[in-house]
Amino acid sequence: MTKTPVCVVGLGLIGGSLMRAAKAAGREVFGYNRSVDGVEAARFDGFDASANLDETLSRAAESGALIVLAVPVPALGQMLRHVRDIAPHCPLTDVTSVKGAVAAEVERAGLLDRFVGGHPMTGTAHSGWAAGNADLFDNTPWVVSVDDHVDPEVWAEVMALALDCRAFVVPARSEEHDAAAATISHLPHLLAEALAATAGEVPLAFALAAGSFRDGTRVAGTAPDLVRAMCEANATQLLPVLDQALHRLIDARNQLAQHQPVAELVEAGHAARIRYDSFSRPQIVATVIGAEGWRDELAAAGRAGGVIRSALPTRGSR
Amino acid sequence: MTKTPVCVVGLGLIGGSLMRAAKAAGREVFGYNRSVDGVEAARFDGFDASANLDETLSRAAESGALIVLAVPVPALGQMLRHVRDIAPHCPLTDVTSVKGAVAAEVERAGLLDRFVGGHPMTGTAHSGWAAGNADLFDNTPWVVSVDDHVDPEVWAEVMALALDCRAFVVPARSEEHDAAAATISHLPHLLAEALAATAGEVPLAFALAAGSFRDGTRVAGTAPDLVRAMCEANATQLLPVLDQALHRLIDARNQLAQHQPVAELVEAGHAARIRYDSFSRPQIVATVIGAEGWRDELAAAGRAGGVIRSALPTRGSR
Repeated sequence: MTKTPVCVVGLGLIGGSLMRAAKAAGREVFGYNRSVDGVEAARFDGFDASANLDETLSRAAESGALIVLAVPVPALGQMLRHVRDIAPHCPLTDVTSVKGAVAAEVERAGLLDRFVGGHPMTGTAHSGWAAGNADLFDNTPWVVSVDDHVDPEVWAEVMALALDCRAFVVPARSEEHDAAAATISHLPHLLAEALAATAGEVPLAFALAAGSFRDGTRVAGTAPDLVRAMCEANATQLLPVLDQALHRLIDARNQLAQHQPVAELVEAGHAARIRYDSFSRPQIVATVIGAEGWRDELAAAGRAGGVIRSALPTRGSR
Repeated sequence: MTKTPVCVVGLGLIGGSLMRAAKAAGREVFGYNRSVDGVEAARFDGFDASANLDETLSRAAESGALIVLAVPVPALGQMLRHVRDIAPHCPLTDVTSVKGAVAAEVERAGLLDRFVGGHPMTGTAHSGWAAGNADLFDNTPWVVSVDDHVDPEVWAEVMALALDCRAFVVPARSEEHDAAAATISHLPHLLAEALAATAGEVPLAFALAAGSFRDGTRVAGTAPDLVRAMCEANATQLLPVLDQALHRLIDARNQLAQHQPVAELVEAGHAARIRYDSFSRPQIVATVIGAEGWRDELAAAGRAGGVIRSALPTRGSR
């Protein structure tokens, strides 16, 4: 069976790594990049890259390629209009972080039927074609959305691409992904910033700082623009979990002020961290993509830690 | 010059390690432990240990030993009464974490004249004699209090012991130590607990958790009793820094709710973390212990990151 060709739109860290990994897996892969420098760097490395978006998308339309949107969120709307005009029938995915907002953009462009959102949970502190590598996705989670609208055939295509890149697939509803990302990535960034900023104003704090402070503020070293972009783009999901954390901290604050024990916060936190330490990732093997209730089944399995490491069978498109 | 003998009261992780390190440095060292098991384990390892507190303190009084209180804070008051009755003229220090509260206990026992508080900033997750080792203090900060009352001769004795244990000395006022410890140790624990507890209630959060969450919740793995003991004992210093952090987070929360940028928090946090990364530890070499203004001079140097790696000269006791 010939594998579906891949058309990567945007050859930065993630798109460029995906191009390398897909080619290494034996796929036909070609791509577009806005900057000519990126195109030339990719070509120099032996890849099929172009700075002409419409030509690239025409080629995708002719070959029925899976189109991967790997551009920053602000550029998505414009890219989607080109896809709608030139390659509206191609299977379509993305590799950006906030899934609900992206799905809404795709819906506005009228392309939701052929779209399945994705989010490889990997990265480095660097960006651009040169920063990419074929191993970036090796044994890392790649979230693939199982929203109500998703088509089984497109879903299977996106799953196959993630597995070809040697990631494992975590099936998840977009809104659950975004709430979880807010909790495990955006909230820790805000807490780290608050801790670092507070310590910055206490004499002697840096002189005594050790492991607790170092670990607790590590992500405050991330470029402020990136942190703001993540948190502000996911504000809707971040607010309720930030409020949750604030309520717990304010309760503890009031207990300390009244010389009462802070047992509630400390015991809940410890119990959760112990549960996390023993959290396992059972393999999902029994679901048939496209069978009755397959989306709910995968969403439930993903929520319980289940991952796909080897392609699931498909019943066919609806 | 013969080194001052050391009398260690409490042979747990810190006291037991101190006994080993002081002996390795060529000191005469003997100690007391409440549990006979701990005494027997120390004796089996070739150390001079006893379960008789009054005999041990009599021996300290006869030899003019430096008495090191290495018992949990709740046991301090009782130990101090024995010291007052049997060895009131011995130089006295401690190795517990909250310096203001300990100094107040020592003052109540009428022993403040001969007392200089200490806090070795080291440890492991284990406790008891068996967990100790002679290298525990190797190249770690050991805070020695420079409060207004401290006697130069006793201060020099405590400094010499810390250096013999191969730690470096950070001179600090007790209240500044306690505020800094609240900021860099107790506050990170509360934030980690809040993050872990919040994530524990979000479906899919553990499934997607990666580095930011792992680092941000690492200290939530600490035994709840220990975390509570630290935070509750230092509530007075923890409250204002917790309030600082809460104000910053609540401001950011309100900005997110109004679709405004969270630049203020993110930029302040990033700037502080970058300053911490480049924080240096210049060596303190010019101060003479006992000279005019030596306490203020050492407190200022410690606040700026200064450390003592080699014994400072002493002008003599007042």
